[in-house]
Amino acid sequence: MRISFGSDNHSGIHPAIIQAIEEANTAYQPSYGEDEYTAGALKEFQRIFGSGTRVFFAFNGTGANVLCLKALTQPHNAIICASTAHINTDECGAPERITGCKLIDIPTSDGKLRPQDILPKLHGFGFQHHSQPKVISISQVTELGTVYTPEEIKALADLAHAHDMFLHMDGSRLANAVAAIDADPADLTVRAGVDALSFGGTKNGMLMGEAVIFFSPGPAHDFLYTRKQSMQLFSKSRFIAAQYLAYFKDGLWLKNAAHANDMARYLAEQLAGIPRLHITQKVESNAVFAVIPEDCCQKMLDKHFFYIWDESTGEVRWMCSFNTGKTFIDEFVNDLKNILL
Amino acid sequence: MRISFGSDNHSGIHPAIIQAIEEANTAYQPSYGEDEYTAGALKEFQRIFGSGTRVFFAFNGTGANVLCLKALTQPHNAIICASTAHINTDECGAPERITGCKLIDIPTSDGKLRPQDILPKLHGFGFQHHSQPKVISISQVTELGTVYTPEEIKALADLAHAHDMFLHMDGSRLANAVAAIDADPADLTVRAGVDALSFGGTKNGMLMGEAVIFFSPGPAHDFLYTRKQSMQLFSKSRFIAAQYLAYFKDGLWLKNAAHANDMARYLAEQLAGIPRLHITQKVESNAVFAVIPEDCCQKMLDKHFFYIWDESTGEVRWMCSFNTGKTFIDEFVNDLKNILL
Amino acid sequence: MRISFGSDNHSGIHPAIIQAIEEANTAYQPSYGEDEYTAGALKEFQRIFGSGTRVFFAFNGTGANVLCLKALTQPHNAIICASTAHINTDECGAPERITGCKLIDIPTSDGKLRPQDILPKLHGFGFQHHSQPKVISISQVTELGTVYTPEEIKALADLAHAHDMFLHMDGSRLANAVAAIDADPADLTVRAGVDALSFGGTKNGMLMGEAVIFFSPGPAHDFLYTRKQSMQLFSKSRFIAAQYLAYFKDGLWLKNAAHANDMARYLAEQLAGIPRLHITQKVESNAVFAVIPEDCCQKMLDKHFFYIWDESTGEVRWMCSFNTGKTFIDEFVNDLKNILL
Amino acid sequence: MRISFGSDNHSGIHPAIIQAIEEANTAYQPSYGEDEYTAGALKEFQRIFGSGTRVFFAFNGTGANVLCLKALTQPHNAIICASTAHINTDECGAPERITGCKLIDIPTSDGKLRPQDILPKLHGFGFQHHSQPKVISISQVTELGTVYTPEEIKALADLAHAHDMFLHMDGSRLANAVAAIDADPADLTVRAGVDALSFGGTKNGMLMGEAVIFFSPGPAHDFLYTRKQSMQLFSKSRFIAAQYLAYFKDGLWLKNAAHANDMARYLAEQLAGIPRLHITQKVESNAVFAVIPEDCCQKMLDKHFFYIWDESTGEVRWMCSFNTGKTFIDEFVNDLKNILL
Repeated sequence: MRISFGSDNHSGIHPAIIQAIEEANTAYQPSYGEDEYTAGALKEFQRIFGSGTRVFFAFNGTGANVLCLKALTQPHNAIICASTAHINTDECGAPERITGCKLIDIPTSDGKLRPQDILPKLHGFGFQHHSQPKVISISQVTELGTVYTPEEIKALADLAHAHDMFLHMDGSRLANAVAAIDADPADLTVRAGVDALSFGGTKNGMLMGEAVIFFSPGPAHDFLYTRKQSMQLFSKSRFIAAQYLAYFKDGLWLKNAAHANDMARYLAEQLAGIPRLHITQKVESNAVFAVIPEDCCQKMLDKHFFYIWDESTGEVRWMCSFNTGKTFIDEFVNDLKNILL
Repeated sequence: MRISFGSDNHSGIHPAIIQAIEEANTAYQPSYGEDEYTAGALKEFQRIFGSGTRVFFAFNGTGANVLCLKALTQPHNAIICASTAHINTDECGAPERITGCKLIDIPTSDGKLRPQDILPKLHGFGFQHHSQPKVISISQVTELGTVYTPEEIKALADLAHAHDMFLHMDGSRLANAVAAIDADPADLTVRAGVDALSFGGTKNGMLMGEAVIFFSPGPAHDFLYTRKQSMQLFSKSRFIAAQYLAYFKDGLWLKNAAHANDMARYLAEQLAGIPRLHITQKVESNAVFAVIPEDCCQKMLDKHFFYIWDESTGEVRWMCSFNTGKTFIDEFVNDLKNILL
Repeated sequence: MRISFGSDNHSGIHPAIIQAIEEANTAYQPSYGEDEYTAGALKEFQRIFGSGTRVFFAFNGTGANVLCLKALTQPHNAIICASTAHINTDECGAPERITGCKLIDIPTSDGKLRPQDILPKLHGFGFQHHSQPKVISISQVTELGTVYTPEEIKALADLAHAHDMFLHMDGSRLANAVAAIDADPADLTVRAGVDALSFGGTKNGMLMGEAVIFFSPGPAHDFLYTRKQSMQLFSKSRFIAAQYLAYFKDGLWLKNAAHANDMARYLAEQLAGIPRLHITQKVESNAVFAVIPEDCCQKMLDKHFFYIWDESTGEVRWMCSFNTGKTFIDEFVNDLKNILL
Repeated sequence: MRISFGSDNHSGIHPAIIQAIEEANTAYQPSYGEDEYTAGALKEFQRIFGSGTRVFFAFNGTGANVLCLKALTQPHNAIICASTAHINTDECGAPERITGCKLIDIPTSDGKLRPQDILPKLHGFGFQHHSQPKVISISQVTELGTVYTPEEIKALADLAHAHDMFLHMDGSRLANAVAAIDADPADLTVRAGVDALSFGGTKNGMLMGEAVIFFSPGPAHDFLYTRKQSMQLFSKSRFIAAQYLAYFKDGLWLKNAAHANDMARYLAEQLAGIPRLHITQKVESNAVFAVIPEDCCQKMLDKHFFYIWDESTGEVRWMCSFNTGKTFIDEFVNDLKNILL
């Protein structure tokens, strides 16, 4: 595979990350999070998100999302999310299986939940036959590349809290959102009322490693056992921690994300005016969604790697990442133009 | 932490492994196992265990064990294991929670199950009130450092198969067993009748990564979904695969294990004749179990890192690993002698 | 409570049923289904649905539905149903919790699924990230009181089977459907391609007792254990069996259902022409759905018992049952007219 | 089946119970526990066990036991019980499957747990790898027919509470224990420190119906949803409630139990002195355990119904119930004597 616009997890590891792993490879460290690297990384998270932040590493995004939800719910609860949410479409039912909860998914035009769409689902509280709504889960950035503003998040958090519910954020691409709107990470999360955050690293230059983050002590209670029993406890924790230390050092995480975002915007700009190509979502982060003719799509797939998002409409998704180069994009756009112009 | 005899997962990464990760860090690879490294690693597993071998990576030992068991069972089954089995004592109930099965644990003197101990538990087949026995699970090497011979494994496999049951092997330290008895890995597993194998790497020099291995097609059926739903699917699969390629290259896995075993034997030899110190288990792999006086234990713990195995008897466990040095052992033994002589 | 149009489970037990319980109350019978009454009842089911029918009693409708679904699925599967399906709205997430599966619900106008509405959900087969669709579940009669024809059921069965899926029928009110279209029960189920049937009795004059029915041997395999482990095995099985024997004797089940249907039709006829009252669903079984003004609704609720179906639209549900009398209806309609005329 | 000593659930329904069902069969009652009979029955439970008692009906003993345990635990907990406990041997793994917890079973000579046997299992608190002990579960009477004294129960409750654990009592035969030691039911339960009680009726003359009882508000929180999601909510609740009203009226429950106990004692007395017949457990309630020669066992089974308890030792169990008659016992003993004398 020469170049991929398929997913930001097709990219490898940022050199600073891999170097951090090497440097942490001293002879001995206690395992299961008792090491000094883990202690140091937790401090970094608290520097960014506030001193009340509780952080637990997990292996992957599915693990981080499902464990956040498990910590917030009992099996008789319901979790409300957008129909396009990763937890609804791409985790093979892990949320239902591990939490026991019902997922209530809501169609949206742009991947973003809005209070007025959620309100009709907030009923049946106290009725024993009805899965009790307990969590609103949003993705920041969304699976359609759009970005919530702090105000939009706060409105959802207020709605949740008014119903004794929690707001969960799937932040597998939170870095891209922070970079996109040049926000303080805390403004997009804890200060906007988010209760639990799945914090990603794998899609933005880390080897692997995600974090389950709680902004209040409740969901963190007994969470060590939940993580272990859910098979997400890593023995050599220092090697996730060391990655995060490098990830946060000198703002590498935001630099990586900003580059990915820039490349998506650059790609969108180059696509402007190409006939029979229609960009379908606002390009607010590192993804471009577009509808192209089917024969064009097939020709491009012969040469490049990307995913068809919706076969029924001919919509495709082009993802940029920390190591996407302008020359890749220029070549890609040139090939598109050769077909469509 | 200067030196640890606490666990083989206190050690870091073997240099050849970390180099392989770097070399696999080319720009783009498909994710979720579609990459060329994963394909190459699977071939290596098949070279070692036979062409019928099915291999699926998992993140950690808990994941590999539980997913093996899940693939072999339905929730109404029972899993028979030694009382000391890792799945019984150290996985916070993950096997019960994820498989839904009952664990039936059997006390042993040395961590090894024997047919005559299992037979009394093989009853109630066809009785709807009784969890139906379906798996015998053994650890090779055991949690007490002992090693099953191929004949012993075969006897357990025959017992299992005679009752329409499966034999599962927790091989988180299989390398140490293979090195210990200089066996062909296939003789200790597939040719001895093992049906499913949790194959470890993390405790023997890898950064992370375990493998779920099936020797017949049945348990592999639909396993991709089970792994994904159980949150054990790694996006950047190439970085586990590359580790395994290096792990198997020139027999690194067995060299590492042989060294750890040698160091345990060396430690045991140095301990011979020390008064008030009693070695409690045969030293057949990379662990030494011993009973020492409580005050001695406390003094040693002030300076060295290791675990008390059984507070009621004063038994301790000293683990060696691929990077345990003779000088560490000499120093450790010297300190012991200064206290006990 | 004098009279209730709230639910068909507000009614008591038909006298012939209670007499059958008494007659079965001989001194001793083996428990857990080994008794002669259970054997006799199974024969009755086979007489009605064919000799290949497997029948297992369960306590309630939730149990029957969830156990049917559990027998047809693995946790990584998805179950497709109407948004109004009882399994989606009224079982507090039991299907998700016990099967581990995702429910995919489809909005309908009348509670009936149609192939064209299901087709867009039948994708992602073989894609490990996607819950694999395995069951289409329909309710006969539907939660909106409508009735599937044998042809409509067959079309759904064909669609399911063409995708290696199963068709499940929630038949908690199957008797009402059979009575409504004067069909052979087998034509509405096994001969239309239904694979698993939740067969109800409690809503149609039984004390309690539902049946899980499979029309092929596959799902019945190991089902005894699944039922026991799911807490749905009744020790004194004879007392469900005896009820079913009386239920089927001389067609009592269909007489009860026909009466309930007749009463609903009679109610609908009496309502015709009343201003500001709009019947919203075809009255095909024992339910009448109508929109009435809010003040009228409140006045009626002061005197009669029934449920508001949809607060946002003012829709109410009036259920008739085996013991609903014409005089009840006349009085009820008279009260309505006094308010609305 | 003419006579059975197989199980107390081989007996039918006491006439007063069946009459109560008939009398409750008025036209309409609200469902799901909102009816007046349920309200009345709850008051009876509170009269017996104290005003703080929370009561929830369940269908069967498995349901009552598992739901008690679910209410007391999180999935990462462990439940300690005797090896002979019904929850360990006869519920097909339902406790593990539904609670997610590990069961730690302790061998006993007489089915009774004692603090000194439990203490060695109370370790690993706070260690994330270890299932956290949270419940001690005892059966009163035990599966071996023995009876705990209030003092014995209190000692176990104190042990549990000292470790922030709960004491659960499987009281499927609590009536027999109360009758056996002529105790106040509250002295054997709430006043002895029991936190949750599975209260039986089915084995003592009821048609069906068990109760989940909590003596403090904590476990009752959200329990309505847990019961519904666990498929144990009965629509026509009045018909369990009416049974309990009759069960408690004029002490019927204790009369039934006392009779069963008396018959077991009478049986044991008649067996005294018969050669080659050895009674193995104290006859404290309604069961007699004995070892008899294998050929004698087979001859008796040709004519009478009872269960072999342990094939390896030739131990059998003879259960008496509310409708066991002295003439049955005389005939049974006579047959035994004809073989053994």
